[in-house]
Amino acid sequence: MPATPSARKSKTVRAAAAAAALALTSAPGASGDEGMWTFDNLPVERLKESYGFAPAAPWLELLQKASTRFNDGGSGAFVSKDGLVLTNHHVALGQLQKMSAPGKDFVRDGFFAASAADEIKCPDLEINVLMSMQEVTARVKGAEDPKASDRVRNEQRKAEISRITKESTDATGLRSDVVELYQGGEYWLYRYKKYTDVRLAAAPELQAAFYGGDLDNFTYPRYALDFAFFRVYEDGRPVRPAHFLRWSKDGAADGELVFVTGHPGHTDRLNTVAQLEDARDAGLPLYLEIARRRRRDYYDYAARGAEQERRIKERIFGVENALKAVGGEHAGLLDPALLKSKAAAEAALRKAAAASKDPAARAAKGSWDKIAAAQRKFASRRLQVSYRRYEPARVVGLAATIVRLVAETAKPNEKRWEEYRDSNLESLRFRLFSPAPLYPDMEEFLLARSLAESREILGPNDAYVKLALGGKTPEKAARDLIAGTKLFDPAERRRLTDGGAAAVAASQDALIVWQRGLDALYRAQRKWYEDEIESVLNAEGDRVAKARFAVYGKSAYPDATFTLRLSFGKVAGYELGTTRVAPFTTFHGLYDRALGMGEKPPFDLAARVKAARTRLNLDTKVNFVTTNDIIGGNSGSPVVNAKGEYVGLIFDGNIQSLVGRYAYDGTRNRAVAVHSAAIVEALRGIYGANALADELTAK
Amino acid sequence: MPATPSARKSKTVRAAAAAAALALTSAPGASGDEGMWTFDNLPVERLKESYGFAPAAPWLELLQKASTRFNDGGSGAFVSKDGLVLTNHHVALGQLQKMSAPGKDFVRDGFFAASAADEIKCPDLEINVLMSMQEVTARVKGAEDPKASDRVRNEQRKAEISRITKESTDATGLRSDVVELYQGGEYWLYRYKKYTDVRLAAAPELQAAFYGGDLDNFTYPRYALDFAFFRVYEDGRPVRPAHFLRWSKDGAADGELVFVTGHPGHTDRLNTVAQLEDARDAGLPLYLEIARRRRRDYYDYAARGAEQERRIKERIFGVENALKAVGGEHAGLLDPALLKSKAAAEAALRKAAAASKDPAARAAKGSWDKIAAAQRKFASRRLQVSYRRYEPARVVGLAATIVRLVAETAKPNEKRWEEYRDSNLESLRFRLFSPAPLYPDMEEFLLARSLAESREILGPNDAYVKLALGGKTPEKAARDLIAGTKLFDPAERRRLTDGGAAAVAASQDALIVWQRGLDALYRAQRKWYEDEIESVLNAEGDRVAKARFAVYGKSAYPDATFTLRLSFGKVAGYELGTTRVAPFTTFHGLYDRALGMGEKPPFDLAARVKAARTRLNLDTKVNFVTTNDIIGGNSGSPVVNAKGEYVGLIFDGNIQSLVGRYAYDGTRNRAVAVHSAAIVEALRGIYGANALADELTAK
Repeated sequence: MPATPSARKSKTVRAAAAAAALALTSAPGASGDEGMWTFDNLPVERLKESYGFAPAAPWLELLQKASTRFNDGGSGAFVSKDGLVLTNHHVALGQLQKMSAPGKDFVRDGFFAASAADEIKCPDLEINVLMSMQEVTARVKGAEDPKASDRVRNEQRKAEISRITKESTDATGLRSDVVELYQGGEYWLYRYKKYTDVRLAAAPELQAAFYGGDLDNFTYPRYALDFAFFRVYEDGRPVRPAHFLRWSKDGAADGELVFVTGHPGHTDRLNTVAQLEDARDAGLPLYLEIARRRRRDYYDYAARGAEQERRIKERIFGVENALKAVGGEHAGLLDPALLKSKAAAEAALRKAAAASKDPAARAAKGSWDKIAAAQRKFASRRLQVSYRRYEPARVVGLAATIVRLVAETAKPNEKRWEEYRDSNLESLRFRLFSPAPLYPDMEEFLLARSLAESREILGPNDAYVKLALGGKTPEKAARDLIAGTKLFDPAERRRLTDGGAAAVAASQDALIVWQRGLDALYRAQRKWYEDEIESVLNAEGDRVAKARFAVYGKSAYPDATFTLRLSFGKVAGYELGTTRVAPFTTFHGLYDRALGMGEKPPFDLAARVKAARTRLNLDTKVNFVTTNDIIGGNSGSPVVNAKGEYVGLIFDGNIQSLVGRYAYDGTRNRAVAVHSAAIVEALRGIYGANALADELTAK
Repeated sequence: MPATPSARKSKTVRAAAAAAALALTSAPGASGDEGMWTFDNLPVERLKESYGFAPAAPWLELLQKASTRFNDGGSGAFVSKDGLVLTNHHVALGQLQKMSAPGKDFVRDGFFAASAADEIKCPDLEINVLMSMQEVTARVKGAEDPKASDRVRNEQRKAEISRITKESTDATGLRSDVVELYQGGEYWLYRYKKYTDVRLAAAPELQAAFYGGDLDNFTYPRYALDFAFFRVYEDGRPVRPAHFLRWSKDGAADGELVFVTGHPGHTDRLNTVAQLEDARDAGLPLYLEIARRRRRDYYDYAARGAEQERRIKERIFGVENALKAVGGEHAGLLDPALLKSKAAAEAALRKAAAASKDPAARAAKGSWDKIAAAQRKFASRRLQVSYRRYEPARVVGLAATIVRLVAETAKPNEKRWEEYRDSNLESLRFRLFSPAPLYPDMEEFLLARSLAESREILGPNDAYVKLALGGKTPEKAARDLIAGTKLFDPAERRRLTDGGAAAVAASQDALIVWQRGLDALYRAQRKWYEDEIESVLNAEGDRVAKARFAVYGKSAYPDATFTLRLSFGKVAGYELGTTRVAPFTTFHGLYDRALGMGEKPPFDLAARVKAARTRLNLDTKVNFVTTNDIIGGNSGSPVVNAKGEYVGLIFDGNIQSLVGRYAYDGTRNRAVAVHSAAIVEALRGIYGANALADELTAK
């Protein structure tokens, strides 16, 4: 399944990170079913030619406003007049973990609310609905002094974006983000309706939702009931959304034209060849190395006992998922044919830009080489700048957020880092003060491991390592830090934050003191990255984008940015080896896989699923594949037919789709979805959740 | 599924062919579950170490004498006290085709005899049971004059083999073959009980037996009911075989030690690197090119109408099967890792042989180079010598057999070509006089195509092309030859054969006249091959085999020769991509694949299978995979457990096993079998053949 966690994470840490940062080159327009399109620039002609379909304005508004973004990484959609939102179980997994406690394991056992009164409020789930899009390119660019340096223009642009979002938030009360598209070629103001009272209505047990486990993850055929239902509340009552998707009577059919709306997290399709080679040879290998170490840490912690295993299960899921996803991306980059075609496209664009009559195109002449130079410069400090983004102890991140928050909010809005702008503070505080449980022994274990790893990877003389350890062993440092902090209590986090810079400066909390000590180093590293790398990538990326528009027009889609996109495609099997993979699986296939594997984990059947065999209509379709172009972050996306009806629930891509971070191949790249019929059949036949099924299918 | 037709074919045309002829180098002993072992040289120590199993003599005798060879290419086993033999549907396919007629299509519709009286006699099916094995190496080698040339010694050896088989046939009445093993390192006299009154008892419809068609052929998971039952008669009554396999109550279980007995047709595992490179670059490409042309011819004929399609359906199956099998073998050879490991093994043997104290090992010093030289020499006439072995018009082959038979049998037995020796004549006449239908319009169509192809491939000035066409167009030549022959009538074939050389010389039959005209050329080409190529390959192969025995002992198995072998292994799934393939499929999986594919051909369900869904126990295992080392010719082999019970029916290898012609990889190479439980469940639940099921499972 798509690596949803990275979608959100790659967004918040973007400024400080960079391995797979900004993508800058361009290619001719997409073909076939390729494309994650913004709603303002749909490939209307191609849709008409390929499928004889012309989207009407009300249909587009329905798809836009019925779609929801899960801010902890994922997508979803309103599916009833009473505010029911359908997404994946694995998108809900983080909340399920946070709602669980010793003796109450919603991950393992699932949860089905008997009535609305039994629905459980999520500790820190924010859901967004995109209400409007407005281009602000002219204003953002207008704020730049063309004679200034890249560094100064970078600051000017960021300041203007801060002003735009603050004005919008003040004027509308809506969450307002300025989204950079086409690597700086366009800027758009996106306004979201924001929901923070979200309650769990239903989720199957993990073994039914994630049937086949890590082995079958990212493969197809599949038999996963990867769904979960939330209900959105406002003022203590279920919302009555103006737009929701009605349930299709039959669900997706073979060859049918289908649409996917959702929030793909990150693609690098327009990256330059130099950037791709860097990702292949250094960026992704480093990520995979760290993820493998983290996996080992998680399993070591889980081995301590059943309760420990329960606590860390969702993290294990996440890291296994990421390893398989990024491993697949890396395998894609290792295929010489991919880079060869990328190099050919880049050469063609450079040639066309150089020969163009448009001075904007010719201005990009040196940009590719400058991007490559910035990439090399970044590589020289990659470890120092990148490594710490992977800190696994969450309380450590909360402490850092508090220290930075009070410092940043003391500045004028437009001078702050992006994540501390006024327009982002409400969402940030919602997460910072979450009552979700944190376990000191787990945090200490993970912090000790990450400190030891830092010392091993960065070396004992690294500035961060010296400051972080302060002469102690990793184990001692972690023990002291965790024993000496009160930040496990959300009230203490709120007290410090509300107390502002003075309260933080006066704090004797061990983690706050520690983060204060690291702050100058972090600021220096981030400044170096923004001034020396990001500013170049932005300025040159903008030039390449302009050259690209000049040569090809706006016939392509921007790289994914965890903002709303629409993709189109059809239900279709595919060739594999010498045979074909069927477009659909059925409940027959689920029992076949279980029995064929002797019901050994991860192919054992959840007790309720096993017991339901004689009640279910086994002919019911369970999962299916489509040619839609998706990626991590699309998890939970609705699959919608031409009538705007709900026919399926995206939950994965096949293994051949992982190269999709860099390129789309319509012959083999497939999105994997739960069939709408399976959801109703499971609700009624396995879980006895007839009221929920009735609500879904109500006329 | 294994390419059974080639098993038999490669045997009879061996002398005249050669592309993948004799294999001569050697490698260290087999490891893991590798090996197609002769019953005289089982890897007893390895079986004991790996599986704690020691085969007892009665158990071995049971497996040997319950095993049957289908002489038109395949294996089988006695499974009841009343002479029931179980094999694959695709092994029975040739006979099913020959028994069918316009309006009576056993291939399409299947056949289930209501009682023994309804069983139908096969037109030309001979079944053999191996009764004894006796080494005759000393006698064969003793007949060679060590001072004579390779050519003369080749003749001396052949003559001695003729004497041995004739003596044995005269003395015992049993079919007697001298089998060359280890590329001439050993010669064994195999004596067979021979059955020619074989009757069809039961066969499913093709769509159930070959579910998923060419697409799923050689793939796994599978859901094929690839079984057929014959009953063997003697003196008009069912035989009561002294040995038959009893039916297992539960069938094969995951991880269980299982044995496969049968008649693997042909492997090239001990070929020299020079021979493998020749096969990769020239031999297999030529075969595949001709097979693709033949496929086109067959489909063109089938397009003429439903009756034509019925007539040629089995040929289409055969050529599609061969293309997929040989294509997979070729893909295996194209993997550089394979040839690299072969080259390393060859270098190691050459080094060890050169350093050996045994003069027999040192004598092989120049053999590899001489084999390579013979291979190059053969390549210079490959097209002329190889091309015509693929003649598709069967009546043309019958005419050639008659012309050669009367000429050869006029000579002393030991001077004849192998296939015309006294010991082979009975089987040869059985096939020659078969009442199986031949259709003049189909024969004319195929002959015209092959004549046109000969002219295109060999060129208009080729000696064969000039003689064969006699100045006519291919169409005219074929029309005249088919219109002018009476050989479609088995009685005419018998009359000419019985009349001997005089009758054939006097015949005005167009095909006989034509074959007489081609005879001198054929004899010259065959003589060139035997004297210049085969004699070198035999002599040097013998030296390499001796070196191999000297260095490694008899720790390996000989290449496959369509003689009885035993392989051992276990029921086991395998890794595929990032997940695992289950060891078993169930009837659930069959319906899943059909419904998932929308029941579109070749994934539609036979009407009886579709109707049986509610009657069947869908949990019943249908197909399964084992690590046993098999190849084409093993089709129909029994899978036997340690108790000597029947637990499954080999019908295929997975796509990863096709490289098995050259090497065995236990991690991915899998034999594919029908589970014994599926056969009984299908007999009762789909076909209502309860008497047959009762006979099988009788205590």
